[in-house]
Amino acid sequence: MSKKGPRRSFASDNNAGVHPEIVEAIRAVNEGHVIAYGDDDITARAVKLFRKHFGKDVEVFFVFGGTGANTLGLKAITKPYQAVICAETAHINVDECGAPEKFTGCKLIALQTPDGKLRVEQLEPLVHVFGNEHHVQPRVVSISQATEMGTVYSKQELKAIAKFAHANNMLLHVDGARLANAAANLNASLKEITADAGVDVLSFGGTKNGMIYGEAVVFFDPKLARDFKYIRKQGMHLPSKMRFISAQFETLLSGDLWRRSATHANRMARLLATELEKVPGGKISLTQKVEANGVFAVVPKQFIPQLQKKYFFYVWSEAISEVRLMCSFDTTEEDIHEFVALVRRTVK
Amino acid sequence: MSKKGPRRSFASDNNAGVHPEIVEAIRAVNEGHVIAYGDDDITARAVKLFRKHFGKDVEVFFVFGGTGANTLGLKAITKPYQAVICAETAHINVDECGAPEKFTGCKLIALQTPDGKLRVEQLEPLVHVFGNEHHVQPRVVSISQATEMGTVYSKQELKAIAKFAHANNMLLHVDGARLANAAANLNASLKEITADAGVDVLSFGGTKNGMIYGEAVVFFDPKLARDFKYIRKQGMHLPSKMRFISAQFETLLSGDLWRRSATHANRMARLLATELEKVPGGKISLTQKVEANGVFAVVPKQFIPQLQKKYFFYVWSEAISEVRLMCSFDTTEEDIHEFVALVRRTVK
Amino acid sequence: MSKKGPRRSFASDNNAGVHPEIVEAIRAVNEGHVIAYGDDDITARAVKLFRKHFGKDVEVFFVFGGTGANTLGLKAITKPYQAVICAETAHINVDECGAPEKFTGCKLIALQTPDGKLRVEQLEPLVHVFGNEHHVQPRVVSISQATEMGTVYSKQELKAIAKFAHANNMLLHVDGARLANAAANLNASLKEITADAGVDVLSFGGTKNGMIYGEAVVFFDPKLARDFKYIRKQGMHLPSKMRFISAQFETLLSGDLWRRSATHANRMARLLATELEKVPGGKISLTQKVEANGVFAVVPKQFIPQLQKKYFFYVWSEAISEVRLMCSFDTTEEDIHEFVALVRRTVK
Amino acid sequence: MSKKGPRRSFASDNNAGVHPEIVEAIRAVNEGHVIAYGDDDITARAVKLFRKHFGKDVEVFFVFGGTGANTLGLKAITKPYQAVICAETAHINVDECGAPEKFTGCKLIALQTPDGKLRVEQLEPLVHVFGNEHHVQPRVVSISQATEMGTVYSKQELKAIAKFAHANNMLLHVDGARLANAAANLNASLKEITADAGVDVLSFGGTKNGMIYGEAVVFFDPKLARDFKYIRKQGMHLPSKMRFISAQFETLLSGDLWRRSATHANRMARLLATELEKVPGGKISLTQKVEANGVFAVVPKQFIPQLQKKYFFYVWSEAISEVRLMCSFDTTEEDIHEFVALVRRTVK
Repeated sequence: MSKKGPRRSFASDNNAGVHPEIVEAIRAVNEGHVIAYGDDDITARAVKLFRKHFGKDVEVFFVFGGTGANTLGLKAITKPYQAVICAETAHINVDECGAPEKFTGCKLIALQTPDGKLRVEQLEPLVHVFGNEHHVQPRVVSISQATEMGTVYSKQELKAIAKFAHANNMLLHVDGARLANAAANLNASLKEITADAGVDVLSFGGTKNGMIYGEAVVFFDPKLARDFKYIRKQGMHLPSKMRFISAQFETLLSGDLWRRSATHANRMARLLATELEKVPGGKISLTQKVEANGVFAVVPKQFIPQLQKKYFFYVWSEAISEVRLMCSFDTTEEDIHEFVALVRRTVK
Repeated sequence: MSKKGPRRSFASDNNAGVHPEIVEAIRAVNEGHVIAYGDDDITARAVKLFRKHFGKDVEVFFVFGGTGANTLGLKAITKPYQAVICAETAHINVDECGAPEKFTGCKLIALQTPDGKLRVEQLEPLVHVFGNEHHVQPRVVSISQATEMGTVYSKQELKAIAKFAHANNMLLHVDGARLANAAANLNASLKEITADAGVDVLSFGGTKNGMIYGEAVVFFDPKLARDFKYIRKQGMHLPSKMRFISAQFETLLSGDLWRRSATHANRMARLLATELEKVPGGKISLTQKVEANGVFAVVPKQFIPQLQKKYFFYVWSEAISEVRLMCSFDTTEEDIHEFVALVRRTVK
Repeated sequence: MSKKGPRRSFASDNNAGVHPEIVEAIRAVNEGHVIAYGDDDITARAVKLFRKHFGKDVEVFFVFGGTGANTLGLKAITKPYQAVICAETAHINVDECGAPEKFTGCKLIALQTPDGKLRVEQLEPLVHVFGNEHHVQPRVVSISQATEMGTVYSKQELKAIAKFAHANNMLLHVDGARLANAAANLNASLKEITADAGVDVLSFGGTKNGMIYGEAVVFFDPKLARDFKYIRKQGMHLPSKMRFISAQFETLLSGDLWRRSATHANRMARLLATELEKVPGGKISLTQKVEANGVFAVVPKQFIPQLQKKYFFYVWSEAISEVRLMCSFDTTEEDIHEFVALVRRTVK
Repeated sequence: MSKKGPRRSFASDNNAGVHPEIVEAIRAVNEGHVIAYGDDDITARAVKLFRKHFGKDVEVFFVFGGTGANTLGLKAITKPYQAVICAETAHINVDECGAPEKFTGCKLIALQTPDGKLRVEQLEPLVHVFGNEHHVQPRVVSISQATEMGTVYSKQELKAIAKFAHANNMLLHVDGARLANAAANLNASLKEITADAGVDVLSFGGTKNGMIYGEAVVFFDPKLARDFKYIRKQGMHLPSKMRFISAQFETLLSGDLWRRSATHANRMARLLATELEKVPGGKISLTQKVEANGVFAVVPKQFIPQLQKKYFFYVWSEAISEVRLMCSFDTTEEDIHEFVALVRRTVK
């Protein structure tokens, strides 16, 4: 596969560029001096917008990237002898090179799931160790919303996990790198699927939703945020020219850009899925529900190299020849029809 | 002091905005999809430029920010039982909230200096502990170039420290958040004050030199860089949409923007110093040589609040009523004359 | 269950006392002053004995306890972005409260096994991540010999795992808290099941083999041990009055005390297993082969409380009502017959 | 210097052996099985004795060694972004190979002192950073009692430091590896110089006071101890055969063995100091008050090698030719007179 991918690939929502309104926002705040590290008016406005969307008491901290948002958010609510329960497919478990373990000291207890979603029944057997100093002490249930498998927890599912966690003196952390996609899918407000569902700490993704860089760590209980400014700095994630992250979030959240982009990406994924299913001969089969902006499909092994010559995407499971196809805010219907046309020609 | 500072303060080069050419670079690369995490053509071009400036064998890695650049660069060349020797005023020692200790596990051995610059004579007594397992083992000498006190190591001074370090199986790390200012001051190329002087690892600052965000970790011996891609990812500093950092560095390094901006900031600092010294009655006295973009001056305590009403800047030492005044790429002669006029009126 | 167990329980080989010859050794070396921290003649003699048993080039370091031996041994051969593969039942995974993660920074990748023993086939799918910075990099395969399930790896099994590890640039670590029991079971020398089988680093247990305290970390390749004296000290496991650990190991290894004790404990376990199987009505069934000093058996739930009134032991799996019964150097045939008699009366 | 020192050296109280009553205690509890890890009657009795000596509400945890006691005690009361203030000569700062930094993540702020004792005036300038996320946040003042320089804090001095710490939301940690020597010097009970003086957490030394191994971490506010059982286990310092540490502490604390031994060692140190001062010609001069069991004296450089041929001791400062001479529970008047006689012959 050439390193130079096609102009719009299906490899990752991180391969997309930046929404033009975001670039404009950067330029718009680039005037004169403002206090560094977040003590500026632009940041104050962005935080206010977070409170509008997530609830008036939330504490919000901006950081550079997603691995930082997850890891530092988890650090804020754990001690090193505690454990974080997550799905085996969780980004924190497989895609962050052990950052959570290194920085929090905690063990991750990774559970197998068919679709990236944890169930309460899986959590129950893990709590018998409470009080026994030989065993790490489960403290956090961490879920991804939307999941890395393109699926979405319903409000009921979220509430059930939050209820179980709280009943067992645990907290619910959400990796929301694609929370916008989940909200779009559920036709819900951001608050309904976080604060109202019992979430305690959230990584809210900006990058995958059209920003250049920047994620937010949102605490729904201010007490949990008490140390976070120190954790963020010691965790190497306090941006000096903060206004430029804040301006991006302001642009995302002041109107409906966040939802517009996510809704579009979701719609493109569903279109792609529908079109792939129509490929004759049943050669392509979906492996997951398409609830966000990702499509998981089995493509016979022999066809993959040819497709990858023109389109950059990842093989998710060599074992079952499953590929992952991601859509972004900038994916077009044409992109999809061209790709599916290639698939049709290839598998014929 | 109002949180809304004046349009251009003397508080920090981080309070400045972004050079317009940098914003334009962001916009220019925002087209279509490219592979995330650095495997793209823009990043390849930026790395090539680093090799042009620093030497053809250097390994370069971009990260989000300066604390990350320093901490992860140190991590790459230390083991937790080792120690990093630095000046007491070093950013890694006082301004990173313990990030180096937390992430590397190492002790920082901080030495007092009159001007932010380490001397070889101070290092000599520290090496007698080699081989004794009760004591941390010095492994790195870390210096700031320019220093946090606005001073600059000469080439000879750099070489002397490098020679001592290497003779004692230690490495030389440079926090080059303001390396451009040092090069401008010494009228030297970047290579002359790094590779040619014996530097092993460098944090090369972009943010203070007019970028939005982004620093580079440069390894002059590729063997030292072997693990760094993992350290960067586990260290939460692998930007996903890497092209946007790369494009900024490309803009900085392809022409002379990096030097132009630094030279200007240095010149403004010298102008400010000169004008302050002319204030009648000897009321203002400089405490450090002005070799980069910072001015350190004693201002009688009673005048400071009045100045801070109009200009945001930091008191460096309450004890001696010393203030720090920083200039940036965008500081103007007018800014300086207006400020000094206010000083004159105030101290009269 | 009363905290005061019966005089000899089946709960753990850690509940046993100390072999009288060991106490005598402590007294024998308690004369005058010797250099602390291991630079004494007694320690030199003990190290020599380790070289006799394990190979003339091994490097040996004594530490206080087993969790320290495992964790620090792993630290010596890993970097934080690497991973340690182990069985889900491994002591390092479930019984050390996350010490390995906290101190090494590494992720533990825990694999399910029927009997506590890893198979090469399980390891193969884990090596495809090499070189990909998003994923932790497997560096160590850690096995327990004997396992926590009372089973023992054969020499062939050990060699197969070592071969696979080395072929993939990984190392083989052995938690040998019960290595003596394994050697006794295999009728092998300590060298045959470590150095000759390809083991790289070993925790050699003293405590479970009749010592008061003290374990050894053995490196079969001296290069791997280069940093260990610092790791041990920074890892809080450098005993000051070292001679008293050394004297215990000398007593264990100068004659055949280590093997005598292990052979006896193994024999008692087999006797216990045999007698339990004879309990009428098939009420008790073994779940694991009895190859070391532990017996795993299903005992109907309703009988367990009554047995625990008189004998302290642990329920291993509530789900299947499986109990663990451990024998020690001091378990007697009478102990076993009395216990089995109680079982017979109880289940009748 | 031959590694085989003379029968009783002046090198370290760790070079001494074990008090015979302690060895007897080990033997006495070596009967049958008891629950491991501290859930046994012997440990319960030892804890009761600690409560008798230190106050009825203290929480006590036994660990293997002193570096562990200090490091884990500090871990219990800090977060990684906080700092521990100590004397530059503190054991935690210079003799633990960075264990505190590695395990707690905290920075140690080491202050120069003439005699190993911190003064409140030194602490005052350090508290202005509270609330500023760029700087580590001082949380603990850690002092050694007796100090590493053989001096002892008076009750008034202790109280002044505790008062300052508490007034600034900090805690007072005491490295009491030689607390018994301090109590003997002050003719005070253990409680008077800990609980009554405002100490929050204490490392209480057993090893230097005649035990084989074993130290205690004492929390004077039970709330601070809430996590400690997990910290101890994850910190690799939960002894499995706990009864053998407990029995040693029981022996130390049930009668007056702890004070007898310390008083004797102190008396020997004073005798040694007095005799050294009498050496004609003023060739030997003391550099510190002799308040515990150590003597610090300047001995002309040329005489040291000859003395070290017969007596193992450490040069403390090459620069001023200062040596450290430690006395132990087993040092005799003869030992001292023989040594001083040698000194007299040598310096003549």
